[in-house]
Amino acid sequence: MLLAPEITPNAYTTPLRRLLGPGPSDISTRVLQALAKPTIGYLDPSFVGMMEELKALLRYAFQTKNALTFPVSGPGSAGMEMCFVNMVDRGDKVIVCRNGVFGNRMVENVERCGGQAIIVDDVWGQAVDLNKVEEAFKQYPDAKVLAFVHAETSTGALSDARALCALAQRYGALTIVDAVTSLGGVPVLADEWGADAIYSGSQKCLSCTPGLSPITFSDRVVAKVQARPQKSQSWFLDLNLLLGYWGETTRTYHHTAPTNSLYALHEALLALQQEGLEQAWARHKSNHEALKAGLAVLDIRYVVEETSRLPQLNSIYIPQGLDDKLVRTAMLQEHGIEIGAGLGALAGKIWRIGLMGYSSRVENVVACLAALESVLISQGYACQAGQAVAAAYQSYAQQSLS
Amino acid sequence: MLLAPEITPNAYTTPLRRLLGPGPSDISTRVLQALAKPTIGYLDPSFVGMMEELKALLRYAFQTKNALTFPVSGPGSAGMEMCFVNMVDRGDKVIVCRNGVFGNRMVENVERCGGQAIIVDDVWGQAVDLNKVEEAFKQYPDAKVLAFVHAETSTGALSDARALCALAQRYGALTIVDAVTSLGGVPVLADEWGADAIYSGSQKCLSCTPGLSPITFSDRVVAKVQARPQKSQSWFLDLNLLLGYWGETTRTYHHTAPTNSLYALHEALLALQQEGLEQAWARHKSNHEALKAGLAVLDIRYVVEETSRLPQLNSIYIPQGLDDKLVRTAMLQEHGIEIGAGLGALAGKIWRIGLMGYSSRVENVVACLAALESVLISQGYACQAGQAVAAAYQSYAQQSLS
Repeated sequence: MLLAPEITPNAYTTPLRRLLGPGPSDISTRVLQALAKPTIGYLDPSFVGMMEELKALLRYAFQTKNALTFPVSGPGSAGMEMCFVNMVDRGDKVIVCRNGVFGNRMVENVERCGGQAIIVDDVWGQAVDLNKVEEAFKQYPDAKVLAFVHAETSTGALSDARALCALAQRYGALTIVDAVTSLGGVPVLADEWGADAIYSGSQKCLSCTPGLSPITFSDRVVAKVQARPQKSQSWFLDLNLLLGYWGETTRTYHHTAPTNSLYALHEALLALQQEGLEQAWARHKSNHEALKAGLAVLDIRYVVEETSRLPQLNSIYIPQGLDDKLVRTAMLQEHGIEIGAGLGALAGKIWRIGLMGYSSRVENVVACLAALESVLISQGYACQAGQAVAAAYQSYAQQSLS
Repeated sequence: MLLAPEITPNAYTTPLRRLLGPGPSDISTRVLQALAKPTIGYLDPSFVGMMEELKALLRYAFQTKNALTFPVSGPGSAGMEMCFVNMVDRGDKVIVCRNGVFGNRMVENVERCGGQAIIVDDVWGQAVDLNKVEEAFKQYPDAKVLAFVHAETSTGALSDARALCALAQRYGALTIVDAVTSLGGVPVLADEWGADAIYSGSQKCLSCTPGLSPITFSDRVVAKVQARPQKSQSWFLDLNLLLGYWGETTRTYHHTAPTNSLYALHEALLALQQEGLEQAWARHKSNHEALKAGLAVLDIRYVVEETSRLPQLNSIYIPQGLDDKLVRTAMLQEHGIEIGAGLGALAGKIWRIGLMGYSSRVENVVACLAALESVLISQGYACQAGQAVAAAYQSYAQQSLS
């Protein structure tokens, strides 16, 4: 006798949302349609051809010539873990910059690999302090790796990746860079920076569905990994094994590739290339300026100071007297708009408004401000309907003049 | 100056294929359409409701009441690794049954976790020998875990999971069961067997797109993991952390869930539940019988003896004088049919014809036999056009009488 089904659900229907949180971002119809193309085998010659294109498209997005550039078959945290389990040996010292949730996740990774994390702490919401990192290198000149988050998704702070990579090189350390939220939204220049490992996520400024982690490794990393005497502690994320499938010559089975997600990433990257990186960065900046103008009218303050503020992730303090959950729920249920809550120490204190990838559109800025005004007014907040929206339009007008 | 794009690809167009290899299998239109539904946030109340349904649907598929039943955000090998990194401590003895590629992957996992693998080898293509496993337990009564592959995708052999689980229980060991190729195709009865951890893959007999690994853990495993003094060596696959997102009460962010792939899995599992497990098993059996009848006429022999032969994965010896690659290429390019090559020691010696999930349809059996006849004849193989197809139809006719 079999166990009977517990429930008899209907086919799932998704509500319509504007995704203005910290990711996933809105997915364009062209990417959703690519996702739904018929599945084929992961060793099919047609699929293998698509993989080669995907690698080239990713190299453009990362601004690199690294041969080993491909999407990991898992979310950004799998990409993060792939870097650490392949690049950190037991006992290795790793300098980790921690100015938010994801820096802390890096510390966890180092420790689980048996490495020694040298933690450089900065206040959440601030960029990584270069001087502190230099101090750490002076104290631990034998550190093997410097790991930092380029764009902290938990705070909206952008750090100076170019300077951090240069610092690591001066001390002979490899770099691991988290570009989950930055890739496609602000400049990520792997080769110019001389970064060794950069991982990202598909669902932020690339506006592909969640579940993949684009990654790129310098030839230095490949040489180190190939010469490593011991095996990586992860089979699934073992770079030496993955080289057989994503590498340059062979296509040996390692695991079944997530074919349809890869179709979607191909299309999302194609869209990015067609727009052009510089144009995409400019678009993110423009919509950020308009949102900022609207938020200023509402007297809402940013968490991050202007010089290190991410255009694609607007972290703002929740005005006093407002209920975090209540406002976010009203935004979602009444206006179909998702904005993000704070994480960790910032939970209940901030909101995170994402304008990432395909979410970074004029209509989203305007709809978000209009909804926010309306919800805040209904909560007794002192502001006037339409003023934030007007300020955003004014910002766009000024931008088009300059 | 930015690096220019290397290439300017067109949107990717997939060829039409019948997927009759070892996975992925054919994906139905309803599942592809579910995949393409608009992305929403992974903490959206609507999405959280869908997750609950997904867990219930998976419990039916696994035939379990285990609370901790959910899809891992990665392929089957991530599901495999999740079991080992959470259930194996350094120094633990783990009895691993190895009768194909995936048993060997389990050995790799044990060793990378710092465990000691006690390997029970069987000839590839044969079921796991219970006596050998019992011998291993007698020799190593302190073994903590027994790990085995229920349905070896590399050979098409089915092992007696019920007996193996019973054996482990007698010796006080937990079980890790690979049901990647079995779930949905032949009985997988988690609770009846008393299995502790079973993982599967989305892209085999569930006929969902590749990239997810459905998994179920007994309460014994949950208790062990929660009481574990040290952290799992993997952050991404740490069950204690994942309990916060997929567990019973909370929905705490761990990683961004692959929303769209989960929509597709929900739909694929719904289709399975609507058909009914017993009906699905019977369908796999019926199409296997028809294929077998056709192959017999072509004088093609099975690798696995009848008692332990998987209906959904037909491993057959390549007839002497035929070129493996040439035949598979002709099947793919001329007939749009993918069949699988041999892996490891069986490469070049066998083909693997999958009739998994939605691929297990009368039209696929007939098309496959017709194409195979045609390709073999063109390669000078002694057979007559139409006879294999006729034998398949005859098998169906006989089945409908009995």
